[in-house]
Amino acid sequence: MLVRNGKLRVQAGPECDVVDITSEVRRFVVESGIRDGTVTLFNVGSTAGLTTVEFEPGCVQDLKELFQKIAPATRDYHHEQTWHDGNGYSHMRASLLKPSLVVPVAEGQMRLGTWQQIVLLNFDNKARTREVAIQTMGIA
Amino acid sequence: MLVRNGKLRVQAGPECDVVDITSEVRRFVVESGIRDGTVTLFNVGSTAGLTTVEFEPGCVQDLKELFQKIAPATRDYHHEQTWHDGNGYSHMRASLLKPSLVVPVAEGQMRLGTWQQIVLLNFDNKARTREVAIQTMGIA
Amino acid sequence: MLVRNGKLRVQAGPECDVVDITSEVRRFVVESGIRDGTVTLFNVGSTAGLTTVEFEPGCVQDLKELFQKIAPATRDYHHEQTWHDGNGYSHMRASLLKPSLVVPVAEGQMRLGTWQQIVLLNFDNKARTREVAIQTMGIA
Repeated sequence: MLVRNGKLRVQAGPECDVVDITSEVRRFVVESGIRDGTVTLFNVGSTAGLTTVEFEPGCVQDLKELFQKIAPATRDYHHEQTWHDGNGYSHMRASLLKPSLVVPVAEGQMRLGTWQQIVLLNFDNKARTREVAIQTMGIA
Repeated sequence: MLVRNGKLRVQAGPECDVVDITSEVRRFVVESGIRDGTVTLFNVGSTAGLTTVEFEPGCVQDLKELFQKIAPATRDYHHEQTWHDGNGYSHMRASLLKPSLVVPVAEGQMRLGTWQQIVLLNFDNKARTREVAIQTMGIA
Repeated sequence: MLVRNGKLRVQAGPECDVVDITSEVRRFVVESGIRDGTVTLFNVGSTAGLTTVEFEPGCVQDLKELFQKIAPATRDYHHEQTWHDGNGYSHMRASLLKPSLVVPVAEGQMRLGTWQQIVLLNFDNKARTREVAIQTMGIA
């Protein structure tokens, strides 16, 4: 069995920037040499999340509006009393979306749909270089 | 270590149809021959998701209403400008619920609760035969 | 390859009690002896979920209010017609948050951020001893 750990560094703008990381994940999977197994992604930190979406400008804008509706930036959050960093909504969005995503790999390929990309959503209120832990596990 | 890849084909109606796929998943786990490990499920495509629920008619109806509230079918979505296929809300619901689910297997059994079923939610606005990638990884 | 299955028993209060289980998970990972691999967590049952958050009193309170907004305890749920146990909202919150969380392990450490804890959210309307299936898989 092969296990390979790595990290992706993802440049992301503030306020629900949606970044397509599919090609970086695919490269890691190929270089890891697994034929069948999983690739596990995990956002290191409490104000970003991972999911999949059809990555086109409309869906990207719709995601921003979806999370603005679920946890508005303009509401008061108790988190503010602790740190005064103005990003209580960022924490709520990240906890709801969750940090992990596991994609099966079969015959060397991730089992994604044609119109399905892996994205990081940076919920923080400032631009961040996010760290995504990446790990392949499987057989060659 | 054993890794086995497969796919489930799931017939699903439109508008948040909730389909119990537990028995199909269980059959795959048994046939794969793993005793201890994981079963990873992944919806291939951008307009459906996977989770667990107590599968009874009340919860099924409640799920439909929950997602209708979170991302109403009747709102305008920017996705519509790209494809004009009327399913912007389907994409939002699927991205929020996410495509993957990982269930641990111990002594040949999935670690589900008695009243906890694995379900696919088809968020698309038409009936679909959904493809779910399924993979077991573990030891015999 | 090493696979180790176990369970955590988590004492949780009612109404979206948020319990930090990071140290119990860390202990299991260390004792399992894996150096590189994954730890898979899965809430057994239909009225609790798992995610990560910066575990401080403000975020804990914000999570309670987030889920109260998404699936209010005070609404009518169809689930009530089936069981009359008053926890339809608990099921909806749990299905949305989902029961599973997978954290990569590298060089014996979970790849968590410094301000990122693993939490169980008990959505049920009564105090519960929740069971969380835990599994490590990887290489020593």
